[in-house]
Amino acid sequence: MPSCVWLLALSLAALTGNTIGERTERNCSLTPPYLPSTAVNTTLQLQALREQMLHRNISAYIIPGTDAHLSEYIAPRDARVAFMSGFTGSAGTAVVTQTKATLWTDSRYWVQAERQMDCNWELEKDGRGDHILITCYGNAGHMDSDQILENYNINLESSNRSLKSIPLNLVDQVWKERPPIPPDNLTHLPSRVIQRSWQMKVEHIRNQIMDNPYEPTALLLSALDETAWLFNLRGNDIPYNPFFYSYTLLTMDEIWLFVHMDRVTDELKKYLNSSCTGSLCVQLKGYDTVRDHLKEYVAQPGIKVWIGTEYTNYALYELITPEDKLLTSSYSPVLTTKAVKDETEQRILRDAHVRDAVAVMQLLMWLEKAVPQGKETELTAAEYVNKCRSKQKDSRGPSFETISASGPNAALAHYSPTAETSRRLTVDEMYLVDSGGQYLDGTTDITRTVHWGTPTPMQREAFTRVLMGNIEISRTIFPSGTRGANMEMLGRRALWEVGLNYGHGTGHGVGNYFGVHEWPVGFQSNNIPFRSGMFTSIEPGYYKENDFGIRIEDVVMFLKLIDTSLLSSQQVRNSI
Amino acid sequence: MPSCVWLLALSLAALTGNTIGERTERNCSLTPPYLPSTAVNTTLQLQALREQMLHRNISAYIIPGTDAHLSEYIAPRDARVAFMSGFTGSAGTAVVTQTKATLWTDSRYWVQAERQMDCNWELEKDGRGDHILITCYGNAGHMDSDQILENYNINLESSNRSLKSIPLNLVDQVWKERPPIPPDNLTHLPSRVIQRSWQMKVEHIRNQIMDNPYEPTALLLSALDETAWLFNLRGNDIPYNPFFYSYTLLTMDEIWLFVHMDRVTDELKKYLNSSCTGSLCVQLKGYDTVRDHLKEYVAQPGIKVWIGTEYTNYALYELITPEDKLLTSSYSPVLTTKAVKDETEQRILRDAHVRDAVAVMQLLMWLEKAVPQGKETELTAAEYVNKCRSKQKDSRGPSFETISASGPNAALAHYSPTAETSRRLTVDEMYLVDSGGQYLDGTTDITRTVHWGTPTPMQREAFTRVLMGNIEISRTIFPSGTRGANMEMLGRRALWEVGLNYGHGTGHGVGNYFGVHEWPVGFQSNNIPFRSGMFTSIEPGYYKENDFGIRIEDVVMFLKLIDTSLLSSQQVRNSI
Repeated sequence: MPSCVWLLALSLAALTGNTIGERTERNCSLTPPYLPSTAVNTTLQLQALREQMLHRNISAYIIPGTDAHLSEYIAPRDARVAFMSGFTGSAGTAVVTQTKATLWTDSRYWVQAERQMDCNWELEKDGRGDHILITCYGNAGHMDSDQILENYNINLESSNRSLKSIPLNLVDQVWKERPPIPPDNLTHLPSRVIQRSWQMKVEHIRNQIMDNPYEPTALLLSALDETAWLFNLRGNDIPYNPFFYSYTLLTMDEIWLFVHMDRVTDELKKYLNSSCTGSLCVQLKGYDTVRDHLKEYVAQPGIKVWIGTEYTNYALYELITPEDKLLTSSYSPVLTTKAVKDETEQRILRDAHVRDAVAVMQLLMWLEKAVPQGKETELTAAEYVNKCRSKQKDSRGPSFETISASGPNAALAHYSPTAETSRRLTVDEMYLVDSGGQYLDGTTDITRTVHWGTPTPMQREAFTRVLMGNIEISRTIFPSGTRGANMEMLGRRALWEVGLNYGHGTGHGVGNYFGVHEWPVGFQSNNIPFRSGMFTSIEPGYYKENDFGIRIEDVVMFLKLIDTSLLSSQQVRNSI
Repeated sequence: MPSCVWLLALSLAALTGNTIGERTERNCSLTPPYLPSTAVNTTLQLQALREQMLHRNISAYIIPGTDAHLSEYIAPRDARVAFMSGFTGSAGTAVVTQTKATLWTDSRYWVQAERQMDCNWELEKDGRGDHILITCYGNAGHMDSDQILENYNINLESSNRSLKSIPLNLVDQVWKERPPIPPDNLTHLPSRVIQRSWQMKVEHIRNQIMDNPYEPTALLLSALDETAWLFNLRGNDIPYNPFFYSYTLLTMDEIWLFVHMDRVTDELKKYLNSSCTGSLCVQLKGYDTVRDHLKEYVAQPGIKVWIGTEYTNYALYELITPEDKLLTSSYSPVLTTKAVKDETEQRILRDAHVRDAVAVMQLLMWLEKAVPQGKETELTAAEYVNKCRSKQKDSRGPSFETISASGPNAALAHYSPTAETSRRLTVDEMYLVDSGGQYLDGTTDITRTVHWGTPTPMQREAFTRVLMGNIEISRTIFPSGTRGANMEMLGRRALWEVGLNYGHGTGHGVGNYFGVHEWPVGFQSNNIPFRSGMFTSIEPGYYKENDFGIRIEDVVMFLKLIDTSLLSSQQVRNSI
């Protein structure tokens, strides 16, 4: 599944094709304004929020599109931008003042925003964080502090000193029917999918804390996959992502795990040694008490808290003061350790991919027979592959909403079919299916593009060049420590030769039953260098507006490839 | 000429080969310590500096290896690390306390440091800035504030709050025989090498100041090539670099040029309109008054000063306070504008390269005949090419010290011959010559590697793979805006395939009579994206310790290459 954050995105027209007769986008310059049936009336929630703001003397309020853990995928209860604005796209930031309400999103979502928002909202097409800042500047803006990352989108530190954080989330104050947290209990992974117990992992991370020359005394874990990984625990708080709301504060003597306590069974308490008080006993604390406990810890003399800035929200960050009690790196040692899979993880992740491939082959074989008969659609194909996966051993459902896209719908790169948009599959159109599964032993993600009839010369050329990109990256030998961003152009080069390109990233990390985009591994500029034992997707593509879309995606593992025994002695002495 | 800042560097043993019988490196563990004849006695200057420190209650003092303009190449009067420590390498940072003196440098220079320093100094092989900080931490360290860049090597802002800057340079206080500033007058470029007058450039930069959404009121220029470019002026304060000590403060109404006034002739004053007071009149101020004037300007209400952080020293940076009076970007708009050459600059820079190529061909033809006769050396070859260049029209000398290196000396990548080290050129060794010229119309830089006899299979393979790297980058078609760092692996890929690599960068910007490394164009991670009209060197290499070195370097210009009239309509609609 491609991630579209860092490059200008592509086409956006195809969403408009289905509702005949009705204009699908709002027109706020008419009197009265024209609103399509898809627009959400936001008058009441805006009024309520503005009352809250007036009450607290806040003139501008920023609502980020993420959750308190800076998650890439969020739970319905964290969809605050959608609640306030009607806009449901996966990327967006909203700013509300007493007189204006503005949504920022990137070009992938402009059409969708014009369909979903009413005329209370303005759409701002400049998605840069600094532009958001300028709008708020002089307004003494405030924001949902528990959703603002220190250096994510809006950098409070260096760019704008008139912004203040408030620990209370004003949107939650006015969101009467906010979805609850799922009641399900947390579970720990069975031993057959684990090489390192949580105790071993804790020791390993403590060693890294000790080895850090800046001498931190504690590590704060905020990203949901950090705590899940450390304790070999999983939940289901976010659709398609086996995570649970949590923080961890790890010192050399203590382990504090902040979770919703009613979801921790007695068996789990035993698993976590939560009745004792030694250095390998997990002290369970309420999820909502993390700020209080962190404040208490920081108040002690001689402490220094290590955080990964990419996933720590501002409400926690600002508690770690004065600054000599703070140690930052982009990613915590948990994320960089987790990125390199151990032997068991490597083996079972490959196993999961083999089983997953069976499901995809079943789909493709079935489609080859069924499509010419003219009864299948994007939706039935998506259902079919989901069903095939569900029959595989240890299946835990899809790892993201299946992208099943025919003809012009595939040009949207991220499109998933709905009852209204689903196209019939035919021998006249190219078809792209990007799907993946969650399994107890691994997460998968694969894209195939097919044509059941005769592709045009342009389609053949584009497909070949996308394939060349996939092959070129896969066959490259490079020194351990090379950055994905510095080699991903190999996925584009064959397209560049004829003036073509694609507007999304080239790949992302994948792992053992986590989110389908397992950062910080991948080809983006903020990803960490490749090492053997990492897994990443490789997924170049090409998208022709209103016509077709191509993507070829595999997951690869990095191997220590060069066998130095085959090199000449001269070569060995100079090899990397 | 390769730049070696950002990758682990290579071999370092060859410097030791020439002084038979004498140990060439110091041994401080002996009693008394062993010092080679090349070691410099630094007792007196250290004693004097420590007295200054005691007097001012300073416990640790940092001496960076650059000048107040963060120049890559420095004048002898700015070689403070060399004066204090004896070490003359181009990269090094020194820290002095009452009991210790420590030099940090990278692996290229470890042998050289051990030869040049006496036992007053310790050599620290971890070149990271943060490691320097840790050493000083708790010492309430101080440093030469006019040489510390905000985010260069030592980041005062975010990493260490116990460091303080002092405006007085303590090394200069104790450096009795510090070389003076050259007395030469500044000169302006003749109109035949100029398309844009300085007035046009000022207007152009003012437009960029006005267009900046953060609404700066002034631009401070600190890098020496910024002021030189803006006013079409040149000097000769730094060897091989036609620069002069200067700062510029540019507002919408005024232009303040800070220079040593006695070097500005009446003719130049007229050229700069320095007798009037309008918005296109240059107000000349003494070089040493920049801090005072900046402080005065910043004290006014409603101002905001724009600086490029990569070249602004801390002593100026810290004056721009409170923070809402400061606007930072990595590079000033002068550097990003200057990076794209105008039509005249493109034309004359190509002309300069044609004339320069004649000189290099003269060298290679002469060597082909002369070397088999056995009388030529690295030094005579360097002298020959320098002489050939000096005969070319508009020559202004070499653009850097010629690298003329035979056999194992070439494995050092950066080696320039001296009377002691110069090898005789023979048909049995590979020979590498990396040289360039300054011309009134352009700066050149070219490397050729040759063998006048029969190369070994390993040499042939390595040469071919280096050539493949050079060709692969040169032939690549890519979208405007691609970063050099994201495509430079093409220069390495053919080497990577057999486990080889090189330890320096792949290329750097080149321009019209400036420094030979004209940043921020190039293949390094902090360089700006490529656009048509930029020039860069392409210079992959391979170095085999104690044996040979290969580098093939050309300068290329980026062209708008894709002729959209040749593409199909489908391709055009989707092209970049």
